Amino acid sequence: MNVTVLAGGVGGAKLAHGFALCQPEIRLTVIVNTGDDFDHFGLRICPDLDTVCYTLAGLANPQTGWGRKEDTFEVLQCVAELGGPTWFKLGDKDLATHLERTRLLKEGQPLSRVVKTFCERWGIEAQVLPMSDDPVRTMVHTQEYGWIGFQDYFVRYGCQPAVKDFAFEGCERASPAPGVIEALEASDLIVIAPSNPWVSVQPILSLKGVSSTIHSKKAIAVSPIIQGRTVKGPAAKMYRELGIEPSALAVARHYQPFLWGFVMDELDRGLESSVRSSGIMVLITQTMMHNEQERLTLAKKILTFSKEIYQNRERREF
Amino acid sequence: MNVTVLAGGVGGAKLAHGFALCQPEIRLTVIVNTGDDFDHFGLRICPDLDTVCYTLAGLANPQTGWGRKEDTFEVLQCVAELGGPTWFKLGDKDLATHLERTRLLKEGQPLSRVVKTFCERWGIEAQVLPMSDDPVRTMVHTQEYGWIGFQDYFVRYGCQPAVKDFAFEGCERASPAPGVIEALEASDLIVIAPSNPWVSVQPILSLKGVSSTIHSKKAIAVSPIIQGRTVKGPAAKMYRELGIEPSALAVARHYQPFLWGFVMDELDRGLESSVRSSGIMVLITQTMMHNEQERLTLAKKILTFSKEIYQNRERREF
Repeated sequence: MNVTVLAGGVGGAKLAHGFALCQPEIRLTVIVNTGDDFDHFGLRICPDLDTVCYTLAGLANPQTGWGRKEDTFEVLQCVAELGGPTWFKLGDKDLATHLERTRLLKEGQPLSRVVKTFCERWGIEAQVLPMSDDPVRTMVHTQEYGWIGFQDYFVRYGCQPAVKDFAFEGCERASPAPGVIEALEASDLIVIAPSNPWVSVQPILSLKGVSSTIHSKKAIAVSPIIQGRTVKGPAAKMYRELGIEPSALAVARHYQPFLWGFVMDELDRGLESSVRSSGIMVLITQTMMHNEQERLTLAKKILTFSKEIYQNRERREF
Repeated sequence: MNVTVLAGGVGGAKLAHGFALCQPEIRLTVIVNTGDDFDHFGLRICPDLDTVCYTLAGLANPQTGWGRKEDTFEVLQCVAELGGPTWFKLGDKDLATHLERTRLLKEGQPLSRVVKTFCERWGIEAQVLPMSDDPVRTMVHTQEYGWIGFQDYFVRYGCQPAVKDFAFEGCERASPAPGVIEALEASDLIVIAPSNPWVSVQPILSLKGVSSTIHSKKAIAVSPIIQGRTVKGPAAKMYRELGIEPSALAVARHYQPFLWGFVMDELDRGLESSVRSSGIMVLITQTMMHNEQERLTLAKKILTFSKEIYQNRERREF
């Protein structure tokens, strides 16, 4: 069974890890947002790719949601002594990833090949694909500062500015990375992870051929919003600022054209019938993933759910 | 009294430090070779500038001759785990310098301004100037590999290839950094430090206006060769491969047009008359600098020597 997960950062990484723990019964591809990528100190930084890879490799810092576990900050400390910027927390181990990635990119290697090399080195079995080898930059239109880069919004300004709009600079020229469309087409199950719909999943969907392929196959999405709040990140705040009541229902409506099924938390049971009435099948379960076991459990439930949906469709179609 | 030192790496840094310890009685400018600068992992690395600044700031690693004292190698260790290159030993503290320098250069700041900022941060009183804000790259013509960059020759191939020639790419277009010609012109004493004449001092002399200014002022050079050998680095080997017997005499002849005075080690006393016969005044003293005290002692002896030369000239001229 081929499973493809569309992922942003922490939430996406955790669910991808759950599916990775189901290997080798399934074959897993993770397509990762690169709209957050940026250059800092001359180095290419790919926050979501790193979060996904560190998580799959067991190297992630479980406390922070970014960076590597047991990391030190010797370099950043010395940067601070020189008066340099420290708003982006670069750990020493983490920095090695950015250095070697930058070196390989400057050699002319595409990002997807760099990621493949790193995954081999880190013993990651799943196929991890950047959404594109071409630059796509998520821009956030804010009340206070106008259009700003995602990292400025996210880290420098701590998601404080009110958002008005988003743009994915370069998405119209960018191609999906080699393997992205192929993986989607070969999928028995496409999962939209509990990542930020606006700035983690939308950049992936903005690429040529991705939306239409997912549309023709249909996907299962997992709500990143529980009881009107996000576990991490500004998704709920963004919905509110854009005039939409943040809820699992809002997420279901967001992805509606792509969905066969929708996974929402048991705390949102009250919204179940509203989602069902849009013609989407619903799985109500615990979606919080506090540990490895809960990641695996959620992934297994989604696999079972997808088989039910499939059988349901088979019955209807024949 | 204005003293300007032309310096490469370790030997130059030590003598510059000796003069720095004579402050505030003298005003010190150090003009540093940037021909060894190169890009690695997308970062600008300036080995001689860093050696000079670390040494003046008391941050240098006294064992290695490069890098910072009490440094760690967490980042490089993780780069190695990714299969990246580790031939250039980047310590964690050292890396911070390269990161922040690269960031400021990418912001559009000239290298000389970056160096000034770092010197202020590190509490360095002397004026440290890169020889140029423009790129000049020392190339080494080798028997085995043809023309190669200096760092490849020096670090990657460990100075093993036999040299045939040197070139300073870009030197004809490069201008001396702001302050370089002014410092030379305002100098009461110009010192050519015991650095490699071929690849540390020659790049500085190759810049527009530098040779002629030094020529008109005259300098005192300190031999980096003692008993036919160098304390550190390939200078003696280079002389030999170029068909010149490596000796303090060879160094004196190398710099002859620029010299009023020449400082050579007491172990080379036998060569004194040969150097004197070229019309150069000679100071014989211990030139090895094993510790801070010996750096200061050598600098003080050179200051006294320069006053003697000056008085001598005064007597002759008037």
